Amino acid sequence: MTRYAAPVRDMRFALYDVLDLDAQVARLGIDAGRDTVEAVLEEAARFANQVLAPLNQAGDEQGCRYDPATGTVTAPDGFKAAYQRFVEDGWNLLTVPTELGGQGLPLAVDALFKEMLDAANLAWSTYPLLSHGAIEALRHQGEDWQKQAFLAPIVEGRWTGTMCLTEPHCGTDLGLLKTRAEPQADGSYAVTGTKIFISAGEHDFTENIVHLVLARLPDAPPGVKGISLFVVPKFKVARDGSMGERNGVRCGAIEHKMGLKGSATCVMNFDGAQGYLVGQPHRGLQGMFIMMNSARLGVGVQGLGLMERATQNALAYARERLQMRALSGPRLPEKPADPIIVHPDVRRMLLTNKALAEGGRLLAAHAFAQLDEQERGADEAARADGEALVGFLTPIVKGCLTEWAVECTYNAVQIYGGHGYIREHGIEQLARDARITTLYEGTTQIQANDLVGRKLLQLRGAGLKLFLGEIERFCAANAGDPALAEFVAPLAEKAAEWGALTQEIAGRAATDPEEIGAAAVDYLFYSGYVALAYWWARAVAALAKGSQPQAFRDAKRETARFYFARILPRTLTHAAAIRSGAATLMALEAEAFGE
Amino acid sequence: MTRYAAPVRDMRFALYDVLDLDAQVARLGIDAGRDTVEAVLEEAARFANQVLAPLNQAGDEQGCRYDPATGTVTAPDGFKAAYQRFVEDGWNLLTVPTELGGQGLPLAVDALFKEMLDAANLAWSTYPLLSHGAIEALRHQGEDWQKQAFLAPIVEGRWTGTMCLTEPHCGTDLGLLKTRAEPQADGSYAVTGTKIFISAGEHDFTENIVHLVLARLPDAPPGVKGISLFVVPKFKVARDGSMGERNGVRCGAIEHKMGLKGSATCVMNFDGAQGYLVGQPHRGLQGMFIMMNSARLGVGVQGLGLMERATQNALAYARERLQMRALSGPRLPEKPADPIIVHPDVRRMLLTNKALAEGGRLLAAHAFAQLDEQERGADEAARADGEALVGFLTPIVKGCLTEWAVECTYNAVQIYGGHGYIREHGIEQLARDARITTLYEGTTQIQANDLVGRKLLQLRGAGLKLFLGEIERFCAANAGDPALAEFVAPLAEKAAEWGALTQEIAGRAATDPEEIGAAAVDYLFYSGYVALAYWWARAVAALAKGSQPQAFRDAKRETARFYFARILPRTLTHAAAIRSGAATLMALEAEAFGE
Repeated sequence: MTRYAAPVRDMRFALYDVLDLDAQVARLGIDAGRDTVEAVLEEAARFANQVLAPLNQAGDEQGCRYDPATGTVTAPDGFKAAYQRFVEDGWNLLTVPTELGGQGLPLAVDALFKEMLDAANLAWSTYPLLSHGAIEALRHQGEDWQKQAFLAPIVEGRWTGTMCLTEPHCGTDLGLLKTRAEPQADGSYAVTGTKIFISAGEHDFTENIVHLVLARLPDAPPGVKGISLFVVPKFKVARDGSMGERNGVRCGAIEHKMGLKGSATCVMNFDGAQGYLVGQPHRGLQGMFIMMNSARLGVGVQGLGLMERATQNALAYARERLQMRALSGPRLPEKPADPIIVHPDVRRMLLTNKALAEGGRLLAAHAFAQLDEQERGADEAARADGEALVGFLTPIVKGCLTEWAVECTYNAVQIYGGHGYIREHGIEQLARDARITTLYEGTTQIQANDLVGRKLLQLRGAGLKLFLGEIERFCAANAGDPALAEFVAPLAEKAAEWGALTQEIAGRAATDPEEIGAAAVDYLFYSGYVALAYWWARAVAALAKGSQPQAFRDAKRETARFYFARILPRTLTHAAAIRSGAATLMALEAEAFGE
Repeated sequence: MTRYAAPVRDMRFALYDVLDLDAQVARLGIDAGRDTVEAVLEEAARFANQVLAPLNQAGDEQGCRYDPATGTVTAPDGFKAAYQRFVEDGWNLLTVPTELGGQGLPLAVDALFKEMLDAANLAWSTYPLLSHGAIEALRHQGEDWQKQAFLAPIVEGRWTGTMCLTEPHCGTDLGLLKTRAEPQADGSYAVTGTKIFISAGEHDFTENIVHLVLARLPDAPPGVKGISLFVVPKFKVARDGSMGERNGVRCGAIEHKMGLKGSATCVMNFDGAQGYLVGQPHRGLQGMFIMMNSARLGVGVQGLGLMERATQNALAYARERLQMRALSGPRLPEKPADPIIVHPDVRRMLLTNKALAEGGRLLAAHAFAQLDEQERGADEAARADGEALVGFLTPIVKGCLTEWAVECTYNAVQIYGGHGYIREHGIEQLARDARITTLYEGTTQIQANDLVGRKLLQLRGAGLKLFLGEIERFCAANAGDPALAEFVAPLAEKAAEWGALTQEIAGRAATDPEEIGAAAVDYLFYSGYVALAYWWARAVAALAKGSQPQAFRDAKRETARFYFARILPRTLTHAAAIRSGAATLMALEAEAFGE
């Protein structure tokens, strides 16, 4: 079984030493002092380590069970009890706004809280995850009675929420969706259609499940401008909030998947199910985007959690496993062989994981922190900046952290060698679980197109400008610091190239829109690596505060050096690929690929 | 279910247009004309497509079954019958030397034959694979009676062979192995110990199984210089070849793995089992290296097979799946959306797979062809060159083709989107199966250390010099060809840098041996990408022969352009990493990694 201990010390370092959460909390008037947050992190670590982590491997082995006779789904043993404990302990309320009865903690804390849950048990964590999106959608778009009837029980954890977008013939391309909603005399709608890949679409945790469903009204225009959002509960709910009979929605099957087996991925059949319109007719995508952005950041954090868990285990194994001698001579001559951590390439893999996970933690927490700026900023300009920045960072967080999760779990398996391929050790499960994260909530390709097509070109790069501005200010402020020179100089150079590459892409895209797609994924990675260089430089700068022990400071500084020497040069390849343009991608006719 | 059609046309192109197999066959006096080889490829394709491929997904679902009461293993349904068919049709004899009763076809053909089997059904293909190594070891090191008693039935396919190296506490580091062999009065040995991860260690295909086992004699010096090789059959075999009673070797368990579930990965318990010494005492590693090199090339080809199958399916899906419109406007306005192959990044992934698979095919077939040079070269110098070249290319073939198999199956899953994660479609199986190939028969790290530590430094780079010589001659001969200029110029530049990087590593390693391990994996990839640039340039040059249809020639040329524009720049990152040296890898103490 793989071990997991939530990295609370590094989380505190990220929030307070690097991101200066104290200042943000004070500025935005969030009622959450450092003592409270640190106590929450410690308690959450205990919950993750003691309640969720032990269920992870057994959940993978057992999987979910579907009963075709009743259409019910039973989650792996212990999952339901863990959910009940989650709600009893109030974890569901942690970052729910205080006006809804939640604790209203800063969202940077939410990122790290979620990281713990995901690392401990990703499959389990998919059940409460979707409630967050449902809360956001109903909170911003729901009518008052809907907030009473649907939002309150979800906030309380008595019910959970889902997002029902995908249909068999359309995932990315929601404009093609066919599920329809017929208006009824009582003001409700009869929703009919089939949705697939619905996470937590059916389970045994709660007495009701609230589906947020995209469907078309009879008078809907075709495409994405004819999609409306509906709330459709598993058991009917009257306007006074009372629960009634079973609604016409049923789980028709669950998918058998490569991994994430403890998470129920459902086919949901809606057969004239009673639902209510949320928000304006034909404007459903807007409500869904609220959920989707939150979910995308959440999936990025899933990647982060898996990176951390994979790394912890690979490190422990590399210290224990004795095999071969160090090339420069025995380190432990009294033992039959040296631990494999002496070998340079094992170190390369461990340092890669450490650099991506710890740097990724800063990237994610900072992006989540912008959600608070967007919501609580002092004035409209501040809120707009927060929105632009988080919009820009979301595809980077989602795209890069999930791809890095694939890489880090790959490295962990590689460090275990043949033992990594055996189910018993649990490492291969992390690799299988990680593999979904680059696919759901928009593939890496979709994130990349969102970054280049929408966030840079349509929105004129407002988010990039803000982020580059941050980097430039940091570089200027620290240009004279000899302890930082080895980081600041290459960072400044890469930041300048980042801006230049963006201009080049924009220029080419003006005459050939295919250039957007041709550059997108390489640009996504390029952005992620430069962003991480910034965060590693910031981490080293934060060490000067001196609040960390020497060993921690040494490890941070050396990992930063490794990052700049061995990981940041990946930008060379990505820049060359971007600059090669669309021509070599578009030359072949579709038929000729098979030649 | 995933489809597979063996790429016979590209294989013919590789063997005859690019590698000029006709000339090699004539030079080495191999009795195998082009007509024979092409007929064999066609027939083998039918066998792979019709007999093996249909069993692939069911084999994964069903897996192997182990009966603890009898210690027997039952392979998935249909596997045994397919093996019988394989032997009845004489496929086991294809590349066995004629003096042993085989067909003695050139080994470049063997590479592509194995590719077909592996692509069609990797798990099934592991059963006959190990026989090849046993044949080589017995043929070169066995006494005459051992050849009669053991080799003949393996050649005939009546028995199969295994390689028993790994023990629970040692995989890479064979010097640690504990299995012991006690001499008996009758000249046999009693072998006792536990071996793990033994592919095809037990199965129901044949009446006997012949284990080639590494063990220590009582007077063995410690470490790798005290290891001897033994032949230990499942049923005892007398010196006259007659089969006797059950021997003291028994399968104690099979592993539950991430993939390759149709292949039995066995724990083998030897309890005073009767065995015979093969070759000289304490020189067992030599015999095993014969098997291991053959097996390593074979695993590289496994990667190639999975790359091809993944690519075929991803391509078919990309042409069928309608989702979104092309960025430059609808391609199929009459349909609800365009096929996803219109999107630049889908093309990027498909072209990456195509470039790596088709280039990798040339790399592998050329390496296998050197085995014939090594064995049948006109004089000692020619044979030594063959040995040096195949020795140099083996870690590149094994290391790169398996890593590219991970990449290509990753890309295939990505193109399928969420559907790629569902077991039903069979694509995720290819990714799980591919994951073992970078681990067994020596991890990528072991291949890289073999390449840099042994093939470059210990053997003074004889293989590299030969290969660079080939590249230089090609570049010189084609320097004036305007149709090749776009490939020859960057190839010549990279080849020169390859030589320079090698010198740099050798220079640094002279004072710090850790520099070998620090450079190894990046150097392995760097080598693979430059080698592939050479093969793609050679492929384009071969088009001038004009024997291929125009569409094929266009596709080759555009794929080569893509390779040079988008894949070869990966060498930028690898070169930068190599040049960064060992310092950033070795700075942290082992204890500090967790800080």
